[in-house]
Amino acid sequence: MRWLKLTLSYDGTRYHGWQRQTNAFSLQQALEEKLARIFGEKLSITASGRTDAGVHALGQVVSFSTAGRIPLANIPAASRSVLPPDIVVLAAEEAPEGFNARFDAKGKSYIYRIVENGQPDPFRINYAWLLGEKLDMAAMQQAADMIVGEHDFTSFRASGSSPSLPVRNMTKALWRRDKDEAVFEITGNGFLYHMVRNLVGSMVEVGRGEKSPKDFSDILRAKDRRLAGKTAPAEGLYLQEVFY
Amino acid sequence: MRWLKLTLSYDGTRYHGWQRQTNAFSLQQALEEKLARIFGEKLSITASGRTDAGVHALGQVVSFSTAGRIPLANIPAASRSVLPPDIVVLAAEEAPEGFNARFDAKGKSYIYRIVENGQPDPFRINYAWLLGEKLDMAAMQQAADMIVGEHDFTSFRASGSSPSLPVRNMTKALWRRDKDEAVFEITGNGFLYHMVRNLVGSMVEVGRGEKSPKDFSDILRAKDRRLAGKTAPAEGLYLQEVFY
Repeated sequence: MRWLKLTLSYDGTRYHGWQRQTNAFSLQQALEEKLARIFGEKLSITASGRTDAGVHALGQVVSFSTAGRIPLANIPAASRSVLPPDIVVLAAEEAPEGFNARFDAKGKSYIYRIVENGQPDPFRINYAWLLGEKLDMAAMQQAADMIVGEHDFTSFRASGSSPSLPVRNMTKALWRRDKDEAVFEITGNGFLYHMVRNLVGSMVEVGRGEKSPKDFSDILRAKDRRLAGKTAPAEGLYLQEVFY
Repeated sequence: MRWLKLTLSYDGTRYHGWQRQTNAFSLQQALEEKLARIFGEKLSITASGRTDAGVHALGQVVSFSTAGRIPLANIPAASRSVLPPDIVVLAAEEAPEGFNARFDAKGKSYIYRIVENGQPDPFRINYAWLLGEKLDMAAMQQAADMIVGEHDFTSFRASGSSPSLPVRNMTKALWRRDKDEAVFEITGNGFLYHMVRNLVGSMVEVGRGEKSPKDFSDILRAKDRRLAGKTAPAEGLYLQEVFY
């Protein structure tokens, strides 16, 4: 038996998220079914975290154990021959016995892309939030600065999500401009369900002038989901990297 | 009766090209059916040229006549409410009586995108030729230089295509680098069927060192389709602009 760690990039547009479901095609199902062909046996694959429908990955990490004997160096090319082209295996590594991409993750980075330009763009509809409004980046960065450090993120978790510990430590929360896009980068030791999209939704309210950075800080401290803004759309979110 | 000229951008991925066909969904059908709702009558829409399945447009131009009375300024937004998001009306103009987007076109510009980087990229599979090989840009530019001016492009037309005049005048043929992409820009007074993709296919053979710029020049002068390289894939091609 070997334990393997694969790093993946995928375009989440066609998939109903990571997790296997009845009546909907998931990334987990696509990977388990297609990769079984190169490992010669059924696989049970764990991701570092479940991405939602429409969310993309630049560096998702998955793990599984297998008796399959394909050499490590052949895995990316062999995967390419069986996987649909919107899922790519970037790297394959042997992992220590018992390695679990989810439970062993020490941290993650996400990117969120917002198009400020109001001109609709058929090439970005699935790859960014086409907001079409100019945002006050300085005000949004003031809000982002309040995220950094250890905080209880109850206000930004999905309502009704499972009762995992709401305290997480963020080490980076940065807004930057990239051509006509406002791009948010966040790194932390863990993220609650919908947390990045909820943070972005509330920071965009600050960027529009509907809320002040002080309001944002009050929402964070209130630990009350009802106070935060709308969840930003899935298509702007990219899981960038997972740290172990 | 009014004559209208619309400028469109579309992602060609989901469509079986411009032209209406039985059993396949075309851009023409999507536009005629959806825009009929804002003009209140059946429309017959002519494009500057037919893009193939998978080919994209940054500035396609279409024309039609209508008795519909929607104000010009409302057309882009009204179109957005009825069209799928992968087709966008960028501009609407009143045109002279009898205006025909195809027959009145004086010239066109195309762009072709090639990814030299060998790392597969799930986000570009439908938007560029993922060649994954380093190209000799200087040699390809030497070939491109031979295209400029008036030439008989018989060697680069689709075999079996209709017998329109094969002599066309090219005013720009330029290769440039954009990050990990080799991008080809071409402008001319008209293009034969598959001409840009056939030119790119043969220039890539030059860029790989399989043919010399002199071989390319010989192919152009031979007026024999059998000598040219393979047709480059549709997904790298963008109709950029149409001139009137």
